[in-house]
Parts: sequence; C-alpha cells; structure tokens
Amino acid sequence: MPEWIYFFDLCGTAVFALSGALAAGRHKMDPFGVIVLASVTAVGGGSIRDTLMGATPVFWINDPTYIIVILSTVLLTILLVRKPKRVPQKVLPIADALGLALFTIIGAEKALSMGLSGMSAVIMGLITGVGGGIIRDILCRQVPMVLRTEIYATASIAGGIGYTCSLSFGMADLSAMFLAMSTAFAIRLAAITWHLSLPAFDLRSQKPK
Amino acid sequence: MPEWIYFFDLCGTAVFALSGALAAGRHKMDPFGVIVLASVTAVGGGSIRDTLMGATPVFWINDPTYIIVILSTVLLTILLVRKPKRVPQKVLPIADALGLALFTIIGAEKALSMGLSGMSAVIMGLITGVGGGIIRDILCRQVPMVLRTEIYATASIAGGIGYTCSLSFGMADLSAMFLAMSTAFAIRLAAITWHLSLPAFDLRSQKPK
Amino acid sequence: MPEWIYFFDLCGTAVFALSGALAAGRHKMDPFGVIVLASVTAVGGGSIRDTLMGATPVFWINDPTYIIVILSTVLLTILLVRKPKRVPQKVLPIADALGLALFTIIGAEKALSMGLSGMSAVIMGLITGVGGGIIRDILCRQVPMVLRTEIYATASIAGGIGYTCSLSFGMADLSAMFLAMSTAFAIRLAAITWHLSLPAFDLRSQKPK
Repeated sequence: MPEWIYFFDLCGTAVFALSGALAAGRHKMDPFGVIVLASVTAVGGGSIRDTLMGATPVFWINDPTYIIVILSTVLLTILLVRKPKRVPQKVLPIADALGLALFTIIGAEKALSMGLSGMSAVIMGLITGVGGGIIRDILCRQVPMVLRTEIYATASIAGGIGYTCSLSFGMADLSAMFLAMSTAFAIRLAAITWHLSLPAFDLRSQKPK
Repeated sequence: MPEWIYFFDLCGTAVFALSGALAAGRHKMDPFGVIVLASVTAVGGGSIRDTLMGATPVFWINDPTYIIVILSTVLLTILLVRKPKRVPQKVLPIADALGLALFTIIGAEKALSMGLSGMSAVIMGLITGVGGGIIRDILCRQVPMVLRTEIYATASIAGGIGYTCSLSFGMADLSAMFLAMSTAFAIRLAAITWHLSLPAFDLRSQKPK
Repeated sequence: MPEWIYFFDLCGTAVFALSGALAAGRHKMDPFGVIVLASVTAVGGGSIRDTLMGATPVFWINDPTYIIVILSTVLLTILLVRKPKRVPQKVLPIADALGLALFTIIGAEKALSMGLSGMSAVIMGLITGVGGGIIRDILCRQVPMVLRTEIYATASIAGGIGYTCSLSFGMADLSAMFLAMSTAFAIRLAAITWHLSLPAFDLRSQKPK
C-alpha cells in the first residue's frame, strides 16, 4: 500500500474511533468500554471486508499502528471532551462523512488490488465505509445511521462507482482516489447541510405482521 | 454446482431480497438503503456460512448474478409495490418460508460438498436459512423472527436433518433435496397457518437482572 | 491443545450456553430457539476470533464435542430450570464471569500459538470472552452487558495483559493461565459484588443528534 493511502487510512481510523468514543460517552461507558466501541467503529467495516474476501488475518492484526491510533484517539477524547458543550453539534457528522469517504475508497482500492470485479469493489467500499458505523449503532441500540433517509449509503456507492469508473477510463490512481473521495464527501456533506434526501420507499402505513 | 441448485439459489435470493426491501419500506428508507437491507437479507446467511467454513471469497463476490438478482428485485419492488394494500398480508411470510427452505438445503448441500460432518451440515443449513433474516431484523430493531415462538429454527433444523439422513440412507441427491425442502417449507407453512408452536421454555416471570 | 485447556474450554462453553438458554427462557422461546441462542452465546466469540485470524473452518466445525456440550446444557436447563425461583439471582452473573475469564485466556492462548503479537493476543482474548455475550444481548434487544458501566471489558483486558506479560516474564504456561484466569474472574466478581466501576466517560447531557 502506498504511504499516502496508509496515511488516509489512519486518518479515517482516528475519525471513526472518535465517533465511536463520543457515542460511548453518550451511553456513560467506562474507559475500556469506550475502547471497545471506538475499536469496532474504526476497524469493524474493514474487518468484515477482509473476512468476506478471505484476506485473513485481517488488516489490523499484524499492524499495531491501527490499535495505537485508536487508543490515542480514545485517550485524547476522554481527556479533552469532558464537557459536551465543547463539541460543536456539527463536528461528529462532518467527521463521520470524512471517514465514510476515506474508507469507501480505501476499501474499493483493496478489493481491486486483490483482483475483484468493479461491482464487487463498489460493494467492498460500501462495506468498509458503513460497516463500522452500523455495528456502533446496533451496539448502542439505535437504528443505524445508514438506514435513515438522509443520503448515506448513496454517498458511499457514488464514491465507489466514481472511483472504479475513473480507473477504467484510464485516470491515474491518485487522481481517481481524490476525485472519488471528494465526490462521496461532498454528497454526504450536502445531504447533512441541506437535509437532502432521495425520495423514500415508504410502506409505513402497512402494519408489520 | 448443478444448474437446478443454482436456479433454486437465485430464487431464494430474490425471495429474501423482497423480504428485505419490504422491511426497508416499512422503515421509509431511501433507494440505496433499500438495496443495502435487501442485500444483507439475501446474502447475509450464506456469507456467514462461507466465512465460518473458510470458503472465501464468499460466494457472491466472484459471481455478479446474485447482486444483479438483488438489484432487479429491489427495482421491481420499488416500482410495483407503491401501495401497501397491494401486498396481501400472507405473501411475505410465505415467501420467507420458501426462502428458508431453499437456503437451508443449499447451505447443507454446500457444507457436505466441502466434506463437513452431517451435524455441521445441519448447522450450516440453519445459518444459511436464518442468518440473513436475523441481520435484517436486528438492523430494523425487531426481535429476530427466528427467536419468536412460532416454529422457525425448528423447520430449518428438521429440513437439514431430513436432507442429511436421506442422503445417508442412499437417496439420490435430487430426491433428498426436494423431500427436505418440502418438509421444511411444509412445517413452517403449517406453523404460520395454524399458529402452531412447540411448548416454549418460559422464564419470563423471573425479572432480568 | 493440551487436554486441560480443552477441558476448560468445554466448561466455558457449557457456562455460556447456560447463560444463553436462560436469556432465551426470559424471552419465551421454543426449544430450537433456545438451542440457537445458547449456541451463539457459547461459540460466537470464538467464531469471530477464528474468522478474523483466518483459522477456518472455525474450531467447532470439525469437533462435534462443542455442539454436544451445548445440546446437553440446553436439555438440562430446560428440564431442570422449570421454575424461575430455582435460579438464585447471583448464579448467572457468576457463571458469566467464569466463562469470561476462561474464554479470555483460551482466546489469547490460541492467538499466541498462531504467532500473533501480545497486543493482538489480548484483543483476541477480549473478542473470545465478550463476543458471544454481545451477540446474545443484541438478539435479545438489550444493551450489551459489556457496554454497561460495571467492570466487564476491563476484567477481560486485565486477564489478557496478565497472561501475555506472565509468559513474556518466563512463567510456565499453566501457571500463567491460572494466574490470569483468577485475575480476570476476581476482578469481574469484585465488580459484581461491590458494584465497582471505573469512573465513566459521560457525555449524556449532550443530546444525540
């Protein structure tokens, strides 16, 4: 993996670890519980991706850097974020959108480098991007953010398709990556800012059996 | 895999994708959220089965047909099922029962073809049959259908045992498959129709700690 | 695996299967549902550990003993625990603490025997110890016990660190194992008895977005 991809990957890890640690704080967990929730949020998606592709042991087992980044993020979060009001309300969604964009492209890149098809690469990007957040939300008993009607899975899928298409049109890897990351990030950010959503598929008047 | 097994597998995939898409509609999700929920319902169980057995990359990664079937099902569902009343109340449970039966036998068949024991094959059939539905229900914050007192895991286990026993008694693969699928489907259908249930293990008067 | 480790492993399996079966009883499940919940509780953590490490097929697939232990435990639980009052209120937490200690050390031991680093071994011990219980609690729609503020993940991590450090200081495997198991068990038991908890990371006054 080129160094700058690795650097992005660690940034995404820190961002998702922060989002997991803040969610843990909202459920009043002890420090080791915070570590657990931050960790599953940060490496959950990539772990599912690697086990599905058979790329085991999964990426963080033989590289302690990921765990060190998570532990440092948790430590800094616990030390610095003692008062909720110090966290501006928009920080978490924006950080989450950045993590989503970074992880989507890194996941798709890893899938392509293992010889998977473009369609599978888009799916692996999606799993990497949304997997950790889904586990975080399930553990906190919230309906996963990805299932709510704001554009979330959509941003990841758009980024993944943008990345694989750019590559197949002959764009350089680095340019394709930046373009696709910006696309996914911009779509998600626009959805947060203007509360955009696609027309929803709504059967709610039908009572669940 | 013989072609007719493959055909059944795609039918089960469509049926479970439909059940996931309908569940998504009841939670008012956007189209890409519907795709995510339909996909995990359709290929979740088989993915868990393959990762536990070490049959990676999992089955749908190198065969785009499964994803295409899911996307087509989601598209048709969104286009055709605009009004809840058009879905007769019994369609989803019956489709779900058919998917359960198909996936159970296909999962057991794959386990046996990889050299696993009969007991492990029954378990792999169960995981294939109920795994996707459990993930769907967890993501929608429902107690999984498999955990409710109607006969559900029971039907899958009965089908799996029927299949492995029929084979060990020398029955031809095709006959054993049809027999076991019919058994699992009939048991689940009977449970739905007449609200059958096994005597439950009930400790509810004991307050959870 | 030495025989006495195997024996401990089966003890932990029975203990976690009991905890899953009792949880199933509190949700009034049918016998096969009880088997499903007891099984995921008992082998869920170890299965996640094995798939992440790439040690597939996972441990219980080629050794029917684990399934037999689970089925026997479920049978005994259903036959003997007909009246909730017969289960003293402290039995489940103490059994759970014992299972946590046993599975943590066994998971760390397996990771080290596969050549993983000490840090990864601690994490694999944690996953083995808490994974099954987390799946049990999610399926029952409870916030996982590991996320509540009583010392839980803490006990497992302490045990795992104790085990790997003892080994690196040259202690014999058997002694290190007993020492670390006792440590984890004692910490968790003390937390239950005196309602100990670490100072929590509390951001609850911040409303979830």
